[in-house]
This record gives sequence, structure tokens and C-alpha cells, in this order.
Amino acid sequence: MRQKIKTNMDVYEEAIKLHKKYQGKLETVSKIFVKDKQTLSQVYTPGVGAVSKAIEANKELAKELTLKGRTIAVVSDGSAVLGLRNIGPEAAMPVMEGKAILFKQFGGLDAFPICIGTQNTGEIITFVKNLTPTFAGINLEDIEAPRCFVIEQALQDIGIPVMHDDQHGTAVVVLAGLLNAAKVVGKSLQDLKVVINGAGAAGIAIANMLLCKSFESDICTPVGDLILVDSKGIIDRDRKDLNIFKKEIARYSNKENKSGILMDGLMGADVFIGVSRGNLVTPKMIKTMNKNAIVFAIANPIPEIMPGDAKKGGATVVASGRSDFPNQINNVLAFPGIFKGALKSGATRITNVMKHAAAYAIAGTIKNPTADEIIPSVFYPNLADIVAKAVSDAT
Amino acid sequence: MRQKIKTNMDVYEEAIKLHKKYQGKLETVSKIFVKDKQTLSQVYTPGVGAVSKAIEANKELAKELTLKGRTIAVVSDGSAVLGLRNIGPEAAMPVMEGKAILFKQFGGLDAFPICIGTQNTGEIITFVKNLTPTFAGINLEDIEAPRCFVIEQALQDIGIPVMHDDQHGTAVVVLAGLLNAAKVVGKSLQDLKVVINGAGAAGIAIANMLLCKSFESDICTPVGDLILVDSKGIIDRDRKDLNIFKKEIARYSNKENKSGILMDGLMGADVFIGVSRGNLVTPKMIKTMNKNAIVFAIANPIPEIMPGDAKKGGATVVASGRSDFPNQINNVLAFPGIFKGALKSGATRITNVMKHAAAYAIAGTIKNPTADEIIPSVFYPNLADIVAKAVSDAT
Repeated sequence: MRQKIKTNMDVYEEAIKLHKKYQGKLETVSKIFVKDKQTLSQVYTPGVGAVSKAIEANKELAKELTLKGRTIAVVSDGSAVLGLRNIGPEAAMPVMEGKAILFKQFGGLDAFPICIGTQNTGEIITFVKNLTPTFAGINLEDIEAPRCFVIEQALQDIGIPVMHDDQHGTAVVVLAGLLNAAKVVGKSLQDLKVVINGAGAAGIAIANMLLCKSFESDICTPVGDLILVDSKGIIDRDRKDLNIFKKEIARYSNKENKSGILMDGLMGADVFIGVSRGNLVTPKMIKTMNKNAIVFAIANPIPEIMPGDAKKGGATVVASGRSDFPNQINNVLAFPGIFKGALKSGATRITNVMKHAAAYAIAGTIKNPTADEIIPSVFYPNLADIVAKAVSDAT
Repeated sequence: MRQKIKTNMDVYEEAIKLHKKYQGKLETVSKIFVKDKQTLSQVYTPGVGAVSKAIEANKELAKELTLKGRTIAVVSDGSAVLGLRNIGPEAAMPVMEGKAILFKQFGGLDAFPICIGTQNTGEIITFVKNLTPTFAGINLEDIEAPRCFVIEQALQDIGIPVMHDDQHGTAVVVLAGLLNAAKVVGKSLQDLKVVINGAGAAGIAIANMLLCKSFESDICTPVGDLILVDSKGIIDRDRKDLNIFKKEIARYSNKENKSGILMDGLMGADVFIGVSRGNLVTPKMIKTMNKNAIVFAIANPIPEIMPGDAKKGGATVVASGRSDFPNQINNVLAFPGIFKGALKSGATRITNVMKHAAAYAIAGTIKNPTADEIIPSVFYPNLADIVAKAVSDAT
């Protein structure tokens, strides 16, 4: 344990040094060097006037003639950043800037981070709508639940894809991992009893994904049963303290309407998915799950249960959010390809069918899944292109 | 004339080709290549969390650790783009993207174009306020008068410099040119009778600058007299159709309270400054001006009077907005250095004293002004640094 903490301290110090050295991570660069007056007259006045007039006559040309065709906004209000909670927009910037460089390196898409100076839901919705003429898509990030659901929902009609990655990026990668984990343990999706701990953005999105909720087609296979657990315990149909999003999930999940705490839910379950906080689950609790249990302990940096302990408890397949253990559940596997695919097909929304296709494409990169390899590495060659093709085909 | 039109057509075609080839002009680029898991853990989770926590504890660190310290937003609603008027935000993008690359090449500042999906004054003000956590400064651009005055004014307290370049960039370069033009003709600033045609963003800002209006110190020398002319004629204190901004100017200008049309104003004037539209002034009208007249015909691409015609009318010093004649009045001479200087000094506003310093710094690069050289070229070496130093020293 002391060893682990030391390692983390090093990562933190190195990270701060690196950010200081470069004053952040992202820069804006011209594709054209203005070498003389002639070039200036083409990139700026008077030549640029012709480009503006062309777009005035046909707005669609903005996609071909400006960065609007290829640039994603990474937008946050800083209200739910990593495990740090509401640290505000200024402090959220390093994460959004990081996301923007990952979009470029892994997806070949330009991206720019925008941390908004308000946490008012209506003001955020209006703000993002007003970004529409500038961007090809909007990646919402680190906005707290349940506001994130309201904001994302309200922005589905603005004409460009808007996706809250904490919800859907996570859900896509979890489904991808689960598809292969089920193969490893020889169980079929429709037989799985799943317990999700954490009913925030990620937990609710994963639940919706695994239950095929609001699906636009019949290609989705729901899991056998699913129990969602929040900080008060199991979400059942009798609880009076649920927000509308949890209430909705309660209608679809928990077939036997079980009540109780996390421990009660885990008994006899096939899959545990933790998107909550560290050190909540013991090997003893894992022992009460069905044989050949699957454990995704994704809380970061400290998982709900350390992978070694999950194995001790009898789990067959274990995944976490960490890069220093096998099977890292990392959104970077999904979001560059999802947006790239949406842009490729000209989609104005990212539908459940598209997310589903992304999950199957990610899972499909592992030809022979094993307990230690259910999900590809972030550095898997051309992963974003593979995902993008699947997403585009599913549009 | 046929020759000229052909040349312009070529520039227009070349500009569209160039924009199509690169799908715009600006890209976002990572300063750090994510070569392995270790680098990923520094630029993104978990390492980035330490950077976020550091900023949470001290917001000022965002300037050192993220792009906030060095990035300007170029913001427009597309309501007054070049001479094209209200063409909307999508069509404004090529101009804003162009401006962003000029910020980088000439000022060494990162910049990102944001074209807003609203032309509602209040909504724009709220939108720009909400950009504050992301950017080091805001360059407002191509927003129509009189809304541009209201918007810029409302944003002076948001904690980062906000400048509407159509107003102040133009005013700074005009003052720079006028300082040297006055030297060439051997007249002093306080003896000059100036006529400005065009009472939009640029015209009103130039008038305020030349009249030393709202100046924070006594270093500013006002011109002898100034008459502002709008589309209805000379602005005098008896007109009933003036908006509050023109009414305010009327109190300060036009000492004799002349009325009439542009022609009446020009009679006996020393300086004509046109920021209106092409082909409004004849050599005959120039002849009615005082001896050794100065003519700045800045309308673009077609000036109020072609430089050759102004000379025929007897003008001694002639400037225009065009790159194919001597003395090009171009905002690129000013805005990169002004923002660079403001960032250097940590200024939260760009004051009149700072703009005044910028004008004198630009003028100062020409040691021995002549009729054909009152203003440096856009490519004058290190001009932005020279301007930045003056602006920073004046903060």
C-alpha cells in the first residue's frame, strides 16, 4: 500500500511539472503560414470575404471551409470533476484540455476545451446552443447528476451531436467489457444478474444501456436483471426519495423489487459494476455472488475493491479504471471513435444504436477474450477508426 | 479598373481554394505526445487530478498550468462582418479563424474563434461572461453598432481584457498613421480639423480617440476640431435622430455646430478619415480641403476615394485599407501587440492610456515618415513585441 501511494505521488508531481512546463497542453496552430501580403489577402481581407459570402449563401459550406467541420467542444461547468466533485470551471480546465488532446491524438479530431462560468442549468443550455455555429459536436463532461441529464436532453435538437461522456462513454466501454467477460465465464447476457453501485451519471447510463432502454431498434439484448444501488441503498419501486431519473430506472429494473443495502443486492449476482467510490466492497461480499463472478470496480484512482481482493473473493473476471492492472475501463476507448463516426455519417445526434455499435466494435477487437484481456488497450492501433466505422454504419 | 476587378476575382478564387484544401485555417494541437500509459497518466487521469486540485486551491494557477494563461477568444455574432453586414455567425467564421491565426503568427498568442448563435445583446453579454474561466482575453469582432458599444461596455468588469477590435484596433492604427502624417505635412495635432465619414463602431472609436475622450491621464493631445458624418449628414447638436452614442459625441465635437452633408464638412478640413463605403468622395471635394490635406480612405475593399484620385485632388498624404497601395491602415498592426501587452502586465482592462501607447509605439517604428510611409508594414519585425512593451508599460 505504501508503495502504491508513493507511485501516485510521483504521478501527481510529474503531472504538475509537465503542465507548468508547457503552460497547459493544447495550442492553436495555423495550417497556413502567412508569408507575404498575398497570403494575407487570401486568409484574411479581402479574400476571406469570398469565403464568408459562399457560406452566407449556403450554411452547409461552413463544414468544408472552416474548422466547424472537424472541431469538437469539450464543455464542462466543473461541477463533478473526476472524484474531486464540484471544484469549479477553472480547476476543471486541465481535465478538459487533456480530453481535447486525446480527441486529436486518438481520433484525429480537433477539439477545444470550454469551461463555463456558470452552474445554472438553463444558462448552460443556452450557452451550449450558442456554440452551435462554431463546432461540429459537443462533448459534455464532468457535469453533476441529475443536472447532466436535463442539460444533455435539452440539447438533442440543436443540429449537431451532443454527448455527455461521463454517461455514455462509460456505458459503451462497460458494455464492451461485459460482452467479452460474459464470453470468458460462459454466461449469456440475458442470464446475467447485474448490480451497479453508484446512481450518478455513469451508473444511470450504464443501467439504461444494459437494459436497452429507449432503444431505436430491436438489436439490443437486455441483461437478465439489474439492480441499481445509490448511497441510500438499493433502488426499489417503494422508495420515496428518488429523483425522476432514478424513479424511471426503478420501473425498468430490479424485477423482484428487492430492497436493502449493496450487500443484499450482491448476493446471487453475476456482475458487480462499481461507479461510486473506493473501498466499499470486501472479498467476503464477492463470495456471496454467483460462481464465476464478474467485477468491474471502476472508481478512480481507488477502486471499490482492489483487483487482487476481488479475485480472492472468487471473481473470475476483474476490470478497473486503473492502467496498472489488466482490463482498464477507460472512456478514451470510446469517445474519439464515437464522435469521429458521427461526423463521418453527418449524424445530428448520437443514438443508442450508435453507442451499441461502438461497444460491439470495441469488444470485437479482442478475438479470444481471456480473464486478463476483455478490453483493448488505449493504444490499440486504429481503434478510433474501427469504432468510427461501426458508429457511422449504424447511423 | 477592369484590371483591378480581375485581380480581386483571383484573390477570391484563391481564398476559397485555400480554405477548402485545409478545411479552414486553424487547428488544435497537443504540446505533448501521449506515447505510453505513463504519459497518459500525467496528462489525463489520475495525474491531472493533482493539477485540478492545485487550481481549486488557488485559481490564479490556472494561468500557469492551463491554456487560460495564453489564449484569446475571437468572438463574433456575425452581425457586421467586413463590408458584408449581417451575414450571420456561420459565415463570420472564416474571418474569425483568420484573426485567430494572425494572433498566433504575429503575437505569439493562442486564439480560438467563437461565432455565437445569437444576436441578442443580453444573451451575448452573458455568453461572453461565461467564457471567462477559459480565456486570457476576449477580442470582440464584427458586431454591429450600436450594440457593440453596449456589449463591450457591459464586459469591462469580468476580470479579463475585453476589446472590440473594429473600434479600438482601428482607432489605434488611425492615430498612429495620423501622428506621422501630421509630421509629414508639418501640422500639429491640436491644429488639425478632422472629418470622419461613418459613425459606426470604427468612426465613433476614432472620434473618441482623437478627442481624448474619457482619458485616464493628461498625456493625450486632442485634435483641433472634429466633425463626424453619418449617413444622414454632419452630426450636430440639433439633430433629433441620434442614438445616445452619437449624441455623446455631438457634445464633444463640431465646435461650430456645423450642419450639412459630407461635402460641407470637408470644406476647410485638414484630415479626412473614411470608415464608411466606397466611392463617396471626389477629387473635387478633396480640393475644398485645406492645403496639404491628409486622406485616410479606409473602406475595404473599395475605398471612399482611390488613392490616386485623392492625390489628384491635392492631398499630400493618402492612406487606405488596401495592401496594394502605400500606407495600409490594418488592424493587424495593433491587436496582437495590444493583447500581448495586456497579458504581460496582467491588466484586467485595456484602457485608453494603453491604446494611446500602442498608437505611439506603432508610429514610432517609422523614424523618418514620408508621404508614402507613415505606417509600418504588417510584416515589420517584432512589431507585436514593440507594441506589447509600450502597452504593458502603460498599464
